[in-house]
Amino acid sequence: MTKSKVFFDVAGSLDGFIAPEGMDLTHADDPDFKQWLSQWTKLQSWVFQQRFFRENLKLGEGGEIGHDNRLLEATFNRTGVSIMGKRMFDGGERYWPEEAPFHTPVFVLTHEVRKPWERPGGTTFYFVNDGIQSALGQARKAAGNRDVRIAGGANVIQQYLNAGLVDEFTIHYSPVFFGQGLPLFSGMSGNINAKIKEAIASKEVTHVTYEVGK
Amino acid sequence: MTKSKVFFDVAGSLDGFIAPEGMDLTHADDPDFKQWLSQWTKLQSWVFQQRFFRENLKLGEGGEIGHDNRLLEATFNRTGVSIMGKRMFDGGERYWPEEAPFHTPVFVLTHEVRKPWERPGGTTFYFVNDGIQSALGQARKAAGNRDVRIAGGANVIQQYLNAGLVDEFTIHYSPVFFGQGLPLFSGMSGNINAKIKEAIASKEVTHVTYEVGK
Repeated sequence: MTKSKVFFDVAGSLDGFIAPEGMDLTHADDPDFKQWLSQWTKLQSWVFQQRFFRENLKLGEGGEIGHDNRLLEATFNRTGVSIMGKRMFDGGERYWPEEAPFHTPVFVLTHEVRKPWERPGGTTFYFVNDGIQSALGQARKAAGNRDVRIAGGANVIQQYLNAGLVDEFTIHYSPVFFGQGLPLFSGMSGNINAKIKEAIASKEVTHVTYEVGK
Repeated sequence: MTKSKVFFDVAGSLDGFIAPEGMDLTHADDPDFKQWLSQWTKLQSWVFQQRFFRENLKLGEGGEIGHDNRLLEATFNRTGVSIMGKRMFDGGERYWPEEAPFHTPVFVLTHEVRKPWERPGGTTFYFVNDGIQSALGQARKAAGNRDVRIAGGANVIQQYLNAGLVDEFTIHYSPVFFGQGLPLFSGMSGNINAKIKEAIASKEVTHVTYEVGK
Protein backbone atom coordinates (compact mmCIF):
# COMPACT_ATOMS: atom_id res chain seq x y z
CA MET A 1 0.00 0.00 0.00
CA THR A 2 1.32 3.37 -0.99
CA LYS A 3 2.00 6.18 1.45
CA SER A 4 1.53 8.84 -1.21
CA LYS A 5 -0.36 11.92 -0.21
CA VAL A 6 -2.68 13.81 -2.51
CA PHE A 7 -2.18 17.55 -2.31
CA PHE A 8 -2.57 20.83 -4.10
CA ASP A 9 -0.48 23.97 -3.83
CA VAL A 10 -1.68 27.26 -5.28
CA ALA A 11 -1.24 31.01 -4.96
CA GLY A 12 -4.43 32.95 -4.31
CA SER A 13 -5.28 36.64 -4.54
CA LEU A 14 -6.77 38.25 -1.45
CA ASP A 15 -10.15 38.17 -3.12
CA GLY A 16 -9.85 34.44 -3.71
CA PHE A 17 -8.85 34.07 -7.35
CA ILE A 18 -6.09 31.85 -8.70
CA ALA A 19 -6.15 33.41 -12.16
CA PRO A 20 -7.16 36.93 -13.21
CA GLU A 21 -9.87 37.66 -15.73
CA GLY A 22 -8.55 37.32 -19.28
CA MET A 23 -5.95 34.67 -18.51
CA ASP A 24 -7.30 32.07 -20.91
CA LEU A 25 -6.79 31.17 -24.54
CA THR A 26 -9.81 33.17 -25.67
CA HIS A 27 -8.73 36.46 -24.09
CA ALA A 28 -5.00 36.28 -23.47
CA ASP A 29 -4.18 38.39 -26.54
CA ASP A 30 -7.27 40.61 -26.37
CA PRO A 31 -6.19 44.18 -25.53
CA ASP A 32 -9.40 44.67 -23.51
CA PHE A 33 -8.05 42.09 -21.05
CA LYS A 34 -4.41 43.07 -21.09
CA GLN A 35 -4.26 43.65 -17.33
CA TRP A 36 -4.18 39.90 -16.68
CA LEU A 37 -0.43 39.54 -17.15
CA SER A 38 0.52 42.24 -14.62
CA GLN A 39 -2.02 40.86 -12.14
CA TRP A 40 -0.74 37.33 -12.51
CA THR A 41 2.85 38.53 -12.24
CA LYS A 42 1.99 40.25 -8.95
CA LEU A 43 0.40 37.05 -7.65
CA GLN A 44 3.49 35.03 -8.55
CA SER A 45 6.19 37.66 -8.03
CA TRP A 46 7.74 35.86 -5.05
CA VAL A 47 8.11 32.70 -7.18
CA PHE A 48 10.11 34.35 -9.94
CA GLN A 49 12.69 35.53 -7.42
CA GLN A 50 13.54 32.05 -6.16
CA ARG A 51 16.66 30.25 -7.30
CA PHE A 52 14.95 26.86 -7.61
CA PHE A 53 12.24 28.22 -9.89
CA ARG A 54 14.78 30.08 -12.02
CA GLU A 55 16.90 26.98 -12.44
CA ASN A 56 13.93 24.73 -13.21
CA LEU A 57 12.66 27.05 -15.94
CA LYS A 58 16.15 28.02 -17.10
CA LEU A 59 15.45 31.69 -16.48
CA GLY A 60 19.03 32.50 -15.53
CA GLU A 61 21.46 32.58 -12.64
CA GLY A 62 20.91 33.79 -9.09
CA GLY A 63 17.77 34.13 -7.04
CA GLU A 64 16.82 33.95 -3.40
CA ILE A 65 17.65 30.89 -1.31
CA GLY A 66 15.59 31.45 1.85
CA HIS A 67 12.57 29.51 3.02
CA ASP A 68 10.43 30.52 0.03
CA ASN A 69 13.00 28.78 -2.13
CA ARG A 70 13.11 25.72 0.12
CA LEU A 71 9.32 25.45 -0.02
CA LEU A 72 9.28 25.50 -3.82
CA GLU A 73 12.03 22.92 -4.02
CA ALA A 74 10.38 20.65 -1.44
CA THR A 75 7.06 20.84 -3.30
CA PHE A 76 8.77 19.91 -6.55
CA ASN A 77 10.70 17.05 -4.98
CA ARG A 78 7.69 15.47 -3.28
CA THR A 79 5.68 15.46 -6.50
CA GLY A 80 5.78 12.11 -8.29
CA VAL A 81 2.86 12.88 -10.58
CA SER A 82 0.59 15.80 -11.39
CA ILE A 83 -3.07 15.75 -12.38
CA MET A 84 -4.59 18.65 -14.28
CA GLY A 85 -7.69 19.68 -16.17
CA LYS A 86 -7.99 20.15 -19.90
CA ARG A 87 -8.07 23.95 -19.81
CA MET A 88 -4.90 24.15 -17.77
CA PHE A 89 -3.24 21.76 -20.16
CA ASP A 90 -4.42 23.71 -23.22
CA GLY A 91 -2.97 26.91 -21.79
CA GLY A 92 0.25 25.18 -20.88
CA GLU A 93 0.59 23.45 -24.23
CA ARG A 94 0.81 26.95 -25.70
CA TYR A 95 2.94 28.68 -23.07
CA TRP A 96 5.18 26.10 -21.40
CA PRO A 97 8.71 25.81 -22.76
CA GLU A 98 9.45 22.70 -24.82
CA GLU A 99 10.97 21.18 -21.71
CA ALA A 100 7.78 21.37 -19.66
CA PRO A 101 8.44 22.17 -15.98
CA PHE A 102 7.02 18.94 -14.46
CA HIS A 103 9.69 16.31 -15.20
CA THR A 104 7.24 13.57 -14.16
CA PRO A 105 4.16 11.89 -15.62
CA VAL A 106 1.17 14.25 -15.84
CA PHE A 107 -2.40 12.98 -16.12
CA VAL A 108 -4.78 15.26 -18.02
CA LEU A 109 -8.53 14.96 -17.40
CA THR A 110 -10.18 15.32 -20.78
CA HIS A 111 -12.80 13.92 -23.14
CA GLU A 112 -10.23 13.96 -25.91
CA VAL A 113 -8.72 10.60 -26.85
CA ARG A 114 -5.03 11.15 -27.46
CA LYS A 115 -1.84 9.15 -27.25
CA PRO A 116 0.67 9.99 -24.49
CA TRP A 117 2.72 13.05 -25.35
CA GLU A 118 6.33 12.83 -24.30
CA ARG A 119 8.36 16.01 -23.80
CA PRO A 120 12.11 16.43 -23.35
CA GLY A 121 13.20 16.45 -19.70
CA GLY A 122 11.02 13.64 -18.39
CA THR A 123 7.50 15.05 -18.65
CA THR A 124 4.94 12.78 -20.32
CA PHE A 125 1.28 13.78 -20.56
CA TYR A 126 -1.28 10.99 -20.37
CA PHE A 127 -4.87 11.73 -21.35
CA VAL A 128 -7.53 10.22 -19.09
CA ASN A 129 -11.11 9.96 -20.28
CA ASP A 130 -12.85 8.20 -17.41
CA GLY A 131 -12.91 10.64 -14.54
CA ILE A 132 -11.10 11.86 -11.47
CA GLN A 133 -11.07 8.54 -9.58
CA SER A 134 -9.49 6.72 -12.48
CA ALA A 135 -6.92 9.47 -12.97
CA LEU A 136 -6.02 9.32 -9.29
CA GLY A 137 -5.67 5.55 -9.37
CA GLN A 138 -3.29 5.76 -12.33
CA ALA A 139 -1.44 8.67 -10.71
CA ARG A 140 -0.89 6.77 -7.45
CA LYS A 141 0.64 3.87 -9.32
CA ALA A 142 2.95 6.13 -11.29
CA ALA A 143 3.94 8.23 -8.25
CA GLY A 144 5.55 5.39 -6.31
CA ASN A 145 6.35 6.69 -2.84
CA ARG A 146 6.16 10.30 -3.90
CA ASP A 147 3.01 12.38 -3.71
CA VAL A 148 0.28 13.20 -6.20
CA ARG A 149 -0.23 16.88 -6.90
CA ILE A 150 -3.58 18.15 -8.13
CA ALA A 151 -2.08 20.91 -10.25
CA GLY A 152 -5.31 22.66 -11.24
CA GLY A 153 -7.30 24.40 -12.43
CA ALA A 154 -9.68 25.49 -9.74
CA ASN A 155 -12.52 23.28 -10.93
CA VAL A 156 -10.38 20.13 -10.78
CA ILE A 157 -9.10 21.07 -7.32
CA GLN A 158 -12.69 21.58 -6.12
CA GLN A 159 -13.76 18.21 -7.52
CA TYR A 160 -11.00 16.34 -5.71
CA LEU A 161 -11.49 18.27 -2.47
CA ASN A 162 -15.27 17.84 -2.43
CA ALA A 163 -14.86 14.13 -3.18
CA GLY A 164 -12.72 13.74 -0.04
CA LEU A 165 -9.65 12.72 -2.03
CA VAL A 166 -7.25 15.45 -0.90
CA ASP A 167 -4.98 14.90 2.13
CA GLU A 168 -3.49 18.35 2.43
CA PHE A 169 -3.17 21.62 0.60
CA THR A 170 -1.12 24.80 0.65
CA ILE A 171 -2.35 28.27 -0.17
CA HIS A 172 0.14 31.07 -0.77
CA TYR A 173 -1.78 34.24 0.11
CA SER A 174 -0.47 37.09 -2.04
CA PRO A 175 -1.40 40.72 -1.30
CA VAL A 176 -3.08 41.48 -4.60
CA PHE A 177 -6.70 42.00 -5.61
CA PHE A 178 -7.97 40.83 -9.00
CA GLY A 179 -11.58 42.04 -8.83
CA GLN A 180 -12.59 39.38 -11.36
CA GLY A 181 -11.13 36.04 -12.31
CA LEU A 182 -11.22 32.33 -11.64
CA PRO A 183 -12.18 31.68 -8.00
CA LEU A 184 -10.14 29.02 -6.21
CA PHE A 185 -13.09 27.89 -4.11
CA SER A 186 -16.64 28.23 -5.37
CA GLY A 187 -19.46 25.91 -4.49
CA MET A 188 -17.46 24.07 -1.89
CA SER A 189 -18.97 21.49 0.40
CA GLY A 190 -19.35 22.92 3.90
CA ASN A 191 -18.42 19.55 5.40
CA ILE A 192 -14.69 19.57 4.76
CA ASN A 193 -12.80 19.13 7.98
CA ALA A 194 -9.55 21.05 7.60
CA LYS A 195 -6.99 22.15 10.15
CA ILE A 196 -3.80 24.15 9.99
CA LYS A 197 -0.67 22.04 9.65
CA GLU A 198 1.85 24.84 9.20
CA ALA A 199 1.86 28.57 8.50
CA ILE A 200 5.00 30.35 7.36
CA ALA A 201 5.24 34.11 7.21
CA SER A 202 7.29 35.56 4.43
CA LYS A 203 7.87 39.07 3.14
CA GLU A 204 5.68 38.94 0.07
CA VAL A 205 3.39 36.00 0.73
CA THR A 206 1.96 33.94 3.57
CA HIS A 207 2.18 30.19 3.11
CA VAL A 208 -0.43 28.13 4.94
CA THR A 209 -0.70 24.35 4.73
CA TYR A 210 -3.92 22.63 5.79
CA GLU A 211 -4.58 18.97 6.56
CA VAL A 212 -7.92 17.49 5.61
CA GLY A 213 -9.50 15.12 8.12
CA LYS A 214 -11.13 11.93 6.83
CA MET B 1 -3.91 66.57 12.48
CA THR B 2 -4.84 63.15 13.73
CA LYS B 3 -2.58 60.15 13.49
CA SER B 4 -5.49 57.74 13.58
CA LYS B 5 -5.39 54.81 11.24
CA VAL B 6 -8.42 53.37 9.53
CA PHE B 7 -8.48 49.60 9.64
CA PHE B 8 -10.65 46.53 9.53
CA ASP B 9 -10.14 43.17 11.19
CA VAL B 10 -12.20 40.15 10.18
CA ALA B 11 -12.17 36.36 10.22
CA GLY B 12 -12.64 34.72 6.84
CA SER B 13 -13.47 31.18 5.79
CA LEU B 14 -11.11 29.49 3.37
CA ASP B 15 -13.63 30.07 0.61
CA GLY B 16 -13.72 33.78 1.35
CA PHE B 17 -16.88 34.32 3.39
CA ILE B 18 -17.18 36.34 6.59
CA ALA B 19 -20.65 35.07 7.37
CA PRO B 20 -22.31 31.79 6.44
CA GLU B 21 -25.54 31.54 4.50
CA GLY B 22 -28.54 32.06 6.77
CA MET B 23 -26.80 34.32 9.29
CA ASP B 24 -29.20 37.22 8.87
CA LEU B 25 -32.42 38.36 10.47
CA THR B 26 -34.55 36.80 7.74
CA HIS B 27 -33.10 33.30 8.05
CA ALA B 28 -31.45 33.04 11.47
CA ASP B 29 -34.38 31.10 12.96
CA ASP B 30 -35.31 29.23 9.79
CA PRO B 31 -34.60 25.50 10.30
CA ASP B 32 -33.60 25.19 6.63
CA PHE B 33 -30.59 27.39 7.40
CA LYS B 34 -29.75 26.06 10.82
CA GLN B 35 -26.17 25.16 9.85
CA TRP B 36 -25.13 28.82 10.05
CA LEU B 37 -24.50 28.80 13.79
CA SER B 38 -22.14 25.83 13.75
CA GLN B 39 -20.31 27.26 10.73
CA TRP B 40 -19.94 30.66 12.34
CA THR B 41 -18.81 29.07 15.60
CA LYS B 42 -16.09 27.18 13.71
CA LEU B 43 -14.95 30.42 12.07
CA GLN B 44 -14.74 32.16 15.44
CA SER B 45 -13.79 29.24 17.65
CA TRP B 46 -10.32 30.62 18.43
CA VAL B 47 -11.91 33.87 19.66
CA PHE B 48 -14.18 32.25 22.20
CA GLN B 49 -11.19 30.60 23.84
CA GLN B 50 -9.38 33.85 24.59
CA ARG B 51 -9.40 35.38 28.05
CA PHE B 52 -9.81 38.95 26.79
CA PHE B 53 -12.88 38.10 24.73
CA ARG B 54 -14.43 36.13 27.60
CA GLU B 55 -13.90 39.02 30.00
CA ASN B 56 -15.21 41.61 27.56
CA LEU B 57 -18.41 39.68 26.93
CA LYS B 58 -18.63 38.44 30.53
CA LEU B 59 -18.65 34.82 29.40
CA GLY B 60 -16.84 33.56 32.46
CA GLU B 61 -13.42 32.97 33.96
CA GLY B 62 -10.33 31.57 32.32
CA GLY B 63 -9.28 31.40 28.72
CA GLU B 64 -6.05 31.41 26.78
CA ILE B 65 -3.49 34.16 27.24
CA GLY B 66 -1.09 33.59 24.33
CA HIS B 67 -0.61 35.74 21.27
CA ASP B 68 -4.16 35.21 20.01
CA ASN B 69 -5.33 36.83 23.20
CA ARG B 70 -2.83 39.67 22.91
CA LEU B 71 -3.98 40.36 19.35
CA LEU B 72 -7.62 40.60 20.39
CA GLU B 73 -6.78 42.88 23.28
CA ALA B 74 -4.53 45.12 21.15
CA THR B 75 -7.24 45.43 18.50
CA PHE B 76 -9.79 46.41 21.12
CA ASN B 77 -7.44 48.92 22.76
CA ARG B 78 -6.47 50.68 19.53
CA THR B 79 -10.10 51.17 18.53
CA GLY B 80 -11.44 54.61 19.39
CA VAL B 81 -14.50 54.34 17.20
CA SER B 82 -16.22 51.73 15.02
CA ILE B 83 -18.15 52.27 11.80
CA MET B 84 -20.70 49.71 10.65
CA GLY B 85 -23.47 49.18 8.14
CA LYS B 86 -27.15 49.04 8.90
CA ARG B 87 -27.51 45.28 8.49
CA MET B 88 -24.69 44.57 10.92
CA PHE B 89 -26.28 46.96 13.39
CA ASP B 90 -29.73 45.39 12.96
CA GLY B 91 -28.31 41.95 13.68
CA GLY B 92 -26.37 43.26 16.65
CA GLU B 93 -29.30 45.20 18.06
CA ARG B 94 -31.00 41.85 18.39
CA TYR B 95 -28.09 39.69 19.55
CA TRP B 96 -25.60 41.85 21.44
CA PRO B 97 -25.89 41.87 25.22
CA GLU B 98 -27.32 45.04 26.76
CA GLU B 99 -23.76 46.14 27.44
CA ALA B 100 -22.72 46.14 23.78
CA PRO B 101 -19.11 44.97 23.29
CA PHE B 102 -17.70 48.21 21.78
CA HIS B 103 -17.39 50.58 24.77
CA THR B 104 -16.79 53.48 22.33
CA PRO B 105 -18.84 55.59 19.94
CA VAL B 106 -20.13 53.58 16.96
CA PHE B 107 -21.25 55.25 13.72
CA VAL B 108 -23.95 53.37 11.82
CA LEU B 109 -24.38 54.03 8.08
CA THR B 110 -28.10 54.14 7.43
CA HIS B 111 -30.93 55.98 5.71
CA GLU B 112 -32.87 55.88 8.94
CA VAL B 113 -32.99 59.12 10.93
CA ARG B 114 -32.62 58.22 14.58
CA LYS B 115 -31.32 59.86 17.73
CA PRO B 116 -28.08 58.53 19.28
CA TRP B 117 -28.68 55.34 21.24
CA GLU B 118 -26.65 55.11 24.41
CA ARG B 119 -25.96 51.72 25.98
CA PRO B 120 -24.53 50.87 29.38
CA GLY B 121 -20.74 50.44 29.38
CA GLY B 122 -19.79 53.35 27.14
CA THR B 123 -21.16 52.34 23.74
CA THR B 124 -23.21 54.99 21.94
CA PHE B 125 -24.57 54.40 18.45
CA TYR B 126 -24.79 57.44 16.16
CA PHE B 127 -26.80 57.15 12.95
CA VAL B 128 -25.20 58.76 9.90
CA ASN B 129 -27.31 59.48 6.83
CA ASP B 130 -24.86 61.18 4.49
CA GLY B 131 -22.40 58.55 3.40
CA ILE B 132 -19.08 56.91 4.17
CA GLN B 133 -16.91 60.05 3.93
CA SER B 134 -19.07 61.91 6.42
CA ALA B 135 -19.11 58.97 8.80
CA LEU B 136 -15.33 58.71 8.62
CA GLY B 137 -14.92 62.44 9.30
CA GLN B 138 -17.10 62.19 12.39
CA ALA B 139 -15.37 59.00 13.46
CA ARG B 140 -11.90 60.55 13.20
CA LYS B 141 -12.96 63.42 15.45
CA ALA B 142 -14.44 61.09 18.02
CA ALA B 143 -11.49 58.65 17.93
CA GLY B 144 -8.87 61.14 19.14
CA ASN B 145 -5.49 59.49 18.81
CA ARG B 146 -6.95 56.03 18.67
CA ASP B 147 -7.85 54.27 15.43
CA VAL B 148 -11.06 53.95 13.45
CA ARG B 149 -12.27 50.42 12.87
CA ILE B 150 -14.50 49.61 9.92
CA ALA B 151 -16.39 46.88 11.73
CA GLY B 152 -18.40 45.57 8.76
CA GLY B 153 -20.30 44.15 7.05
CA ALA B 154 -18.48 43.11 3.94
CA ASN B 155 -20.16 45.70 1.75
CA VAL B 156 -19.09 48.58 4.01
CA ILE B 157 -15.53 47.24 4.17
CA GLN B 158 -15.44 47.02 0.37
CA GLN B 159 -16.71 50.58 0.00
CA TYR B 160 -14.01 52.01 2.28
CA LEU B 161 -11.27 49.89 0.74
CA ASN B 162 -12.23 50.70 -2.86
CA ALA B 163 -12.44 54.41 -1.95
CA GLY B 164 -8.81 54.32 -0.78
CA LEU B 165 -9.76 55.15 2.81
CA VAL B 166 -8.31 52.10 4.58
CA ASP B 167 -4.73 52.17 5.92
CA GLU B 168 -4.41 48.57 6.98
CA PHE B 169 -6.41 45.44 7.54
CA THR B 170 -6.12 42.06 9.24
CA ILE B 171 -7.61 38.81 8.03
CA HIS B 172 -7.80 35.83 10.35
CA TYR B 173 -7.83 32.82 8.02
CA SER B 174 -9.82 30.02 9.65
CA PRO B 175 -9.74 26.48 8.26
CA VAL B 176 -13.44 26.16 7.54
CA PHE B 177 -15.46 26.10 4.32
CA PHE B 178 -18.92 27.66 4.16
CA GLY B 179 -19.89 26.84 0.56
CA GLN B 180 -22.30 29.78 0.53
CA GLY B 181 -22.46 33.02 2.45
CA LEU B 182 -21.45 36.65 2.48
CA PRO B 183 -18.16 37.12 0.59
CA LEU B 184 -15.61 39.38 2.23
CA PHE B 185 -14.30 40.64 -1.10
CA SER B 186 -16.53 40.79 -4.16
CA GLY B 187 -16.21 43.31 -6.91
CA MET B 188 -12.96 44.72 -5.59
CA SER B 189 -10.92 47.26 -7.49
CA GLY B 190 -7.82 45.61 -8.98
CA ASN B 191 -5.80 48.74 -8.22
CA ILE B 192 -5.39 48.37 -4.48
CA ASN B 193 -1.73 48.35 -3.56
CA ALA B 194 -1.41 46.13 -0.49
CA LYS B 195 1.60 44.56 1.13
CA ILE B 196 2.12 42.26 4.07
CA LYS B 197 2.88 44.03 7.34
CA GLU B 198 2.85 41.03 9.64
CA ALA B 199 1.80 37.39 9.56
CA ILE B 200 1.39 35.37 12.73
CA ALA B 201 0.91 31.64 12.71
CA SER B 202 -1.32 30.19 15.35
CA LYS B 203 -2.77 26.76 16.00
CA GLU B 204 -6.30 27.36 14.80
CA VAL B 205 -6.00 30.47 12.65
CA THR B 206 -3.46 32.45 10.62
CA HIS B 207 -3.44 36.19 11.27
CA VAL B 208 -2.19 38.36 8.42
CA THR B 209 -2.07 42.15 8.51
CA TYR B 210 -1.76 44.09 5.27
CA GLU B 211 -0.82 47.75 4.72
CA VAL B 212 -2.49 49.63 1.91
CA GLY B 213 -0.28 51.96 -0.12
CA LYS B 214 -1.64 55.37 -1.05
